[in-house]
Amino acid sequence: MSNVKMKGFKRLERADNALSKYLKALKIKVIDAENVMLEDALGRVLAEDVVAPIDIPSFDRAAMDGYAVRSSDVRGASPNNPVILKIIGEASAGKAFKGRLGKGETVRISTGAPMPEGADAVVMLEYAEEKDGYVEVIKEAVPGENVSEKGEDVRAGEVVLEEGTILEPQDLAILASLGIKKVKVRRRPRVFVMACGNELVDLVHAQLPLPPGKIVETNRLMIMSSLKKIGAEPIDGGIVGDDISEIMAAISSGLKIADAVVISGGTSVGKGDVVPDAILSLGGKIIVHGVAISPGKPVALCEVKGKPVICLPGYPVAAFIGFLLFVRPLIDKLLRIRGIRMEKKINAVLSKRVPSKTGIMEFVRVSLVESTDGLIAEPIRITGAGVLSSLSKADGFLVVPEDVEGFEAGSNVEVVALRDHLRRMRKGGKEEDI
Amino acid sequence: MSNVKMKGFKRLERADNALSKYLKALKIKVIDAENVMLEDALGRVLAEDVVAPIDIPSFDRAAMDGYAVRSSDVRGASPNNPVILKIIGEASAGKAFKGRLGKGETVRISTGAPMPEGADAVVMLEYAEEKDGYVEVIKEAVPGENVSEKGEDVRAGEVVLEEGTILEPQDLAILASLGIKKVKVRRRPRVFVMACGNELVDLVHAQLPLPPGKIVETNRLMIMSSLKKIGAEPIDGGIVGDDISEIMAAISSGLKIADAVVISGGTSVGKGDVVPDAILSLGGKIIVHGVAISPGKPVALCEVKGKPVICLPGYPVAAFIGFLLFVRPLIDKLLRIRGIRMEKKINAVLSKRVPSKTGIMEFVRVSLVESTDGLIAEPIRITGAGVLSSLSKADGFLVVPEDVEGFEAGSNVEVVALRDHLRRMRKGGKEEDI
Repeated sequence: MSNVKMKGFKRLERADNALSKYLKALKIKVIDAENVMLEDALGRVLAEDVVAPIDIPSFDRAAMDGYAVRSSDVRGASPNNPVILKIIGEASAGKAFKGRLGKGETVRISTGAPMPEGADAVVMLEYAEEKDGYVEVIKEAVPGENVSEKGEDVRAGEVVLEEGTILEPQDLAILASLGIKKVKVRRRPRVFVMACGNELVDLVHAQLPLPPGKIVETNRLMIMSSLKKIGAEPIDGGIVGDDISEIMAAISSGLKIADAVVISGGTSVGKGDVVPDAILSLGGKIIVHGVAISPGKPVALCEVKGKPVICLPGYPVAAFIGFLLFVRPLIDKLLRIRGIRMEKKINAVLSKRVPSKTGIMEFVRVSLVESTDGLIAEPIRITGAGVLSSLSKADGFLVVPEDVEGFEAGSNVEVVALRDHLRRMRKGGKEEDI
Repeated sequence: MSNVKMKGFKRLERADNALSKYLKALKIKVIDAENVMLEDALGRVLAEDVVAPIDIPSFDRAAMDGYAVRSSDVRGASPNNPVILKIIGEASAGKAFKGRLGKGETVRISTGAPMPEGADAVVMLEYAEEKDGYVEVIKEAVPGENVSEKGEDVRAGEVVLEEGTILEPQDLAILASLGIKKVKVRRRPRVFVMACGNELVDLVHAQLPLPPGKIVETNRLMIMSSLKKIGAEPIDGGIVGDDISEIMAAISSGLKIADAVVISGGTSVGKGDVVPDAILSLGGKIIVHGVAISPGKPVALCEVKGKPVICLPGYPVAAFIGFLLFVRPLIDKLLRIRGIRMEKKINAVLSKRVPSKTGIMEFVRVSLVESTDGLIAEPIRITGAGVLSSLSKADGFLVVPEDVEGFEAGSNVEVVALRDHLRRMRKGGKEEDI
């Protein structure tokens, strides 16, 4: 380990071990549930299984435009042996035919219309010719043909969505189809987000130029907006100086109102890094301190008064990575989200060699550039946890695992996308078509 | 084409051609801009380039804990030839050292602290030993070593974020670091969302059991929540019956208050499908009607009074796919989002053969199941545009392109993810660890 600030870490825990050790050590209380209207439930997490109260469809209906028939009437029908049926009415979506189909009778029917009593199949328009109130059918139909049966989509009593599902637009639709107007979801976890450092100035107070040595604090905004994206409710815990009693007071007040606390800065092993001391002084436990990731080594995963407290490095890129690796899974756990998060990964060819130390999981910021051979991943900067622009310029991370010494130029790599859109940057002032 | 409802379509346009033809035909006005506070700008689209007003960092600062030195003083320093410097003070983050470093002098410095005047390098702690107010340096330092230079992250005058960027948490952070408190973003496009069909009942009025032949309308909720996810502002345009004058009135009122109109239902070529007629009667143009996708063929892409009007099929799965293929790119275009959307794709092995007609782009709903050999994609249902549960049960779509006749069992396929999490469904009532 050449990094002097790290000298104090007895050992660095592998990221995956750190997370599982932490989540195992935490006594996580399930976040309580609340009822919300369906139109407000997008992105919320179901707090209970939803059982269908009714069949969907709740009646047999035509799956095609055509003629509702008794299949026994058209048995053996063919172009050489057409069957002639009498049209006794019409059924359209929302307008049922009231009568009952007798032998040799049919009803004009359009998609979605309820099947008339007595009918058990729909003959498609192309196999039927209508003339003077009668229709000539040239193809037989098996029972159930072109009919959506009652309960075909969902059966009453079936679990349609399981507890722990994040509600997507298609889920809201299926719930609506069942006549469900409210759902029980987990309350958004409240996370108190604070930043430590004598050099930090709150954006709201920042007047340019700043006094010498001062910088605008940016991690709270980054962490709070990242929390919003994953369904948590951030609480602004403000900025405190590198003073242990100030930090203790802030953490304490955060723990009173929040389900978890996230602190940025002051978590390393330098002289001014008093956050771990503050946590111990509050009677908290430091479960992991020092993780084998770069950037992001000084992450500390703690518990204070039975609640999770995560300390992220002050360097913005390190804080961002610590968030993805530890805060995000913690929120998933608090919300009891079912299943595992799927990252958005993009295949690309690496433009130049990326060296990496064994034993460390390295996060290399890359931009993705289109070429005739597909996407090229261009490393933006190998080091520099403090260089925030490397993050906003990046399209994604190339993650070099612990047991890999790096990647050669020309390697096929998977890039974890940081954005939904692959930006085409203007090159040399030329604006491309957007 | 065996599908009778499609008989009326003279030709089906390929999805990619349909979209480019449509976007080319539309005279899209750029959505106007508005200023928002940085903390409200998450997910919004920049309406102008942002130019850095200052350098970041705005001063040279230490990148490591150690001793600020004049590199000329430590030239040739080694374990056998240590250089001894006098400690004249201390600098920490936010607390600058006020004096100036003379020859043979040094200042204790911590990461992030401003470099004292005269110093041009930082010697790391491990190459220095402190004793009685002096420090022994055993390694030389080149000018700039362990120093983050003024402007290293961002230079004043540089474009840090381009117009058309969707603002992510890391972008808000870089803007904050520049002291920027407000940004100019595009107003959210307002989209009027209405549904057509005599069979439809508004969820808010739905009392179970519904009258025979009636179903709860679900597409508006699905479309409106999908619009929210991509940064648009949906306006609920309610339900209208299959009546041309009712539909015309609704579209007209939508066009008065919205930037675009999305209509679900009544867009095919059956008797009750009067939406295209309504559009023509309003003096609108139908640019594309009938797309070579399944489900979703009856999509109609129109322009009325200079504004985009998209007609989606009433069948929920078809409406969902039509939304992804046409409404989503339209919104991206209205917002002038820079670059192309990257889908989240997951590699999997197909569990069974999926047949598909050539010339049609087929969307097969699949669930992803973990196995020892990786993920298995299991088709949920090959057909059934009306079967909404196939969407909420799906983890993603397997897209069969127009020129592919299907995929064999065991093929390696890419699945377009419909969720962020790979759910592990309970099997046989056994609850797995979540």
